[in-house]
Amino acid sequence: MARPDPIRRLILALSRLPGIGEKSAARLAFFLMNADEAISRDLSEALLEVRERVHLCSVCCNLTEHDPCRFCADGRRAEDTICVVESVPSLLAIERTGEFRGRYHVLHGVLSPLEGVGPDQLHIKELIARLAGDKVKEIIVATNPSVEGEATALYIQRLCNPLGVKVTRIASGVPIGGDLEYADQATLSRALEERREL
Amino acid sequence: MARPDPIRRLILALSRLPGIGEKSAARLAFFLMNADEAISRDLSEALLEVRERVHLCSVCCNLTEHDPCRFCADGRRAEDTICVVESVPSLLAIERTGEFRGRYHVLHGVLSPLEGVGPDQLHIKELIARLAGDKVKEIIVATNPSVEGEATALYIQRLCNPLGVKVTRIASGVPIGGDLEYADQATLSRALEERREL
Repeated sequence: MARPDPIRRLILALSRLPGIGEKSAARLAFFLMNADEAISRDLSEALLEVRERVHLCSVCCNLTEHDPCRFCADGRRAEDTICVVESVPSLLAIERTGEFRGRYHVLHGVLSPLEGVGPDQLHIKELIARLAGDKVKEIIVATNPSVEGEATALYIQRLCNPLGVKVTRIASGVPIGGDLEYADQATLSRALEERREL
Repeated sequence: MARPDPIRRLILALSRLPGIGEKSAARLAFFLMNADEAISRDLSEALLEVRERVHLCSVCCNLTEHDPCRFCADGRRAEDTICVVESVPSLLAIERTGEFRGRYHVLHGVLSPLEGVGPDQLHIKELIARLAGDKVKEIIVATNPSVEGEATALYIQRLCNPLGVKVTRIASGVPIGGDLEYADQATLSRALEERREL
């Protein structure tokens, strides 16, 4: 056969998605072959369209159809505070709290020497460029509380402090509504260490 | 905005897949937007290609690019035994045992009055058509051991017995390598009921 088996090809293409193994991919493929053709067609188009129409915001590196993105274009948001996140889902999670009305900056990753991710692979240059002009007073580093997230926060602090910008880090500790009995040791240690006076 | 947001559209299209909720769909969408564009493009094409090139085998209703399918076209497979399955993944599972060298028939579902699936929604007509000509001696019903699978097996038995064809059912019982302690009650009851003399 000159062309590869189309069922095999679809299963392979699906199994490249994160968290989808060969078995799940086969299940999805057979679902798609039996389901309404519109489901396959719409997914196929959406996959192409998103790559065609969605790009990085030239200011904050958020994924967006229109440049600048809706956060950067929103004049009501404070320009003196930038919240730095490692991914768009992180940005959306913070936005859902309704607590933050400043600007964002998306790094698209965190420093990870083992995986070959250095400062040049992240959008840190773009962040530094935004600090020219004295508008920005504070950078809140909201990378995940992982080893890489902490290292990235420290790196940004060292870069930005000399520029006269305050760099803060989101708090870590026991989740609200959580139970100390089930909190892991690292989280509980951190909660103790960062205790506040009431 | 005249056109819907392409990110939203992709998340929606992904969340129509079985077992993929809104959160997983968003995770997949952001993966696809950040990953190599070839991954999206290949999946997009594979989705269309499979619907274009894969059809039902006119003999056994298996999904296939070439008609008849490779099982029906294989002259070395016994024509006197047909194994009836509810789906292509079931067919592939049986094929992987290497134990069965007859023909297959894919129903594409099981009888389920609650979900509006009657005999006309399954490929039972095509199965009956294959019994003309006295070649087929035995039908092995390998639908899943669920209520619907058993009902479907019984229905097929009642249709085929008057045509002089033996209808058998795959055995149910404690899985090989399984532990009686962890077997569910229904399985263990069945294992007792269908005990064999050694």
